[in-house]
Amino acid sequence: MAGSAALSDFPENPRVAIVGSGAMGCYYGGRMAQNGADVHFLMRSDLEHVRAHGLDIRSHLGDFRLERVHAAGTTAEIGPCDLVVITLKTTANPSLDQHIPPLLHDGTLLLTLQNGLGNEEFLAERWGAERVLGGVCFTCINRIAPGTISHTSHGAVAIGEFGRPALDRTRAIAGWMQRHGIECRAADSLGEIRWRKLVWNVPFNGLAIAAGGIDTSRILADPALEHLVRGLMREVIGAAGRLGHEIPASFAQDEIDRTLEMGAYRPSSMIDYVDGREVEVEAIWGEPWRQATAAGASCGRMDFLYHIIRTLTAARR
Amino acid sequence: MAGSAALSDFPENPRVAIVGSGAMGCYYGGRMAQNGADVHFLMRSDLEHVRAHGLDIRSHLGDFRLERVHAAGTTAEIGPCDLVVITLKTTANPSLDQHIPPLLHDGTLLLTLQNGLGNEEFLAERWGAERVLGGVCFTCINRIAPGTISHTSHGAVAIGEFGRPALDRTRAIAGWMQRHGIECRAADSLGEIRWRKLVWNVPFNGLAIAAGGIDTSRILADPALEHLVRGLMREVIGAAGRLGHEIPASFAQDEIDRTLEMGAYRPSSMIDYVDGREVEVEAIWGEPWRQATAAGASCGRMDFLYHIIRTLTAARR
Repeated sequence: MAGSAALSDFPENPRVAIVGSGAMGCYYGGRMAQNGADVHFLMRSDLEHVRAHGLDIRSHLGDFRLERVHAAGTTAEIGPCDLVVITLKTTANPSLDQHIPPLLHDGTLLLTLQNGLGNEEFLAERWGAERVLGGVCFTCINRIAPGTISHTSHGAVAIGEFGRPALDRTRAIAGWMQRHGIECRAADSLGEIRWRKLVWNVPFNGLAIAAGGIDTSRILADPALEHLVRGLMREVIGAAGRLGHEIPASFAQDEIDRTLEMGAYRPSSMIDYVDGREVEVEAIWGEPWRQATAAGASCGRMDFLYHIIRTLTAARR
Repeated sequence: MAGSAALSDFPENPRVAIVGSGAMGCYYGGRMAQNGADVHFLMRSDLEHVRAHGLDIRSHLGDFRLERVHAAGTTAEIGPCDLVVITLKTTANPSLDQHIPPLLHDGTLLLTLQNGLGNEEFLAERWGAERVLGGVCFTCINRIAPGTISHTSHGAVAIGEFGRPALDRTRAIAGWMQRHGIECRAADSLGEIRWRKLVWNVPFNGLAIAAGGIDTSRILADPALEHLVRGLMREVIGAAGRLGHEIPASFAQDEIDRTLEMGAYRPSSMIDYVDGREVEVEAIWGEPWRQATAAGASCGRMDFLYHIIRTLTAARR
């Protein structure tokens, strides 16, 4: 199919590249491959292991193993694809300048499933807004060993177009994902689904770091931190509203209830922080704070959280 | 003099009690005693040492030693006084219910030099608003060994009446302090001088803790923390204005300039925090946040700082 599709189409049997084969990339790419898709993984640390042993997915929806996986160390080895799914950590975005060009043909679509804000803009500036889609994953996934992924809850994905309502191709991709084992829906407002995710990520990933490296159940068991969760959620919902994404105030309580059910969950940013790895500070706190400030939203708590996390993560690394 | 004065008077040669003989109490009480005042110290940990060896004050204004000091383990041993200077840590305020009554006669004045907000109210509720004065000390003082105090800069005190402009007695106390070696002025608005002090204490004591235990020069060397210092100062000045205490916006820059001159200063709250001692959370952040919130001031950063410090200090102790 490569090279033949127009941007308005999504082929029946697309050639797919997964750029960034951490937990997210291996899980979602693995699902597609399990269900017969032509999937190519860009890998770094796990490349030799996966070439030799395949992928091992331990999922609450049922475990599976892929003995043979198309794993590459560069995108030049992969070549042009119809769909490029980007699951790279946002702090590595500058490396996309090397990774993306070998994957492109005229009809290549770029779908970023990365965290936070600013990723669609990054892709659009370089390779054209018309190819860009984004998505949000509601799931708990961790890499527990080379080539081994643990998927402990949820798994749904919502995708949308960058700056446009859903198109025929958006629904085509969502349908194709569904047929390949991934619960997926096409949303008309990518901005809204990104901001809804931030209602959770800003307070929970953030307070888990600012309070010294604690899990979600300890956050909600502490009245002072629960107060801050609610204050931050109000600010994020208020900022989203100013930016045209109406989220009902009741969504905050829904998210808190859902989090209580998750038990002692350790947000990925907090794990990165305590392990001394780079934290996605700009995508999760910096860009939302900048957009909220530019929109004139009241965001003193977001301001505090972003700046203290900048300091704490810089001191840790 | 004890027992003879009315609340409107301040005697020429007052009998003075110092309640809370930490660095502040020993320094200011020591100055008074050095200049011939009748001063009685309530002491706890340093009692035996000071009884045996006196007080040793190392001051940038000139060192001095007091060989013989009136040091007591209970206020019953001291008995009624004309002026009770309270320099206790605010977290120990409940102990004042025992300490104060033996010190009182009809004309006893209570002057709290403690940190933050809420201390005058605490005294007024119990022993009558008409006896209560408060003051703010602009100085750097530390206890460096039993009975040994280091006074490294400044030293001025501003005092005011609780809920009233300065009275004749306020000016009389200030004049008496001046004659006893303490730079002191009577202010017409105690609220304003307390809020001016908070413009410094809220951000610097607070960020020194929230950023993991760092000094003022490291705070101002970090652009993210300097941004938060300025945001917090704006909020404190705004809240003070709503409460009727006009502080010019330019005061923030003045305080930052003054802090740069102080070098690598370690705020007392941060030392308490890193040493695992109780921190004056409610006086410095809780009560100002409550008053700002009640006045409808924008105070998201103060809200964040108060609540994260509650959590961090609880975890540390």
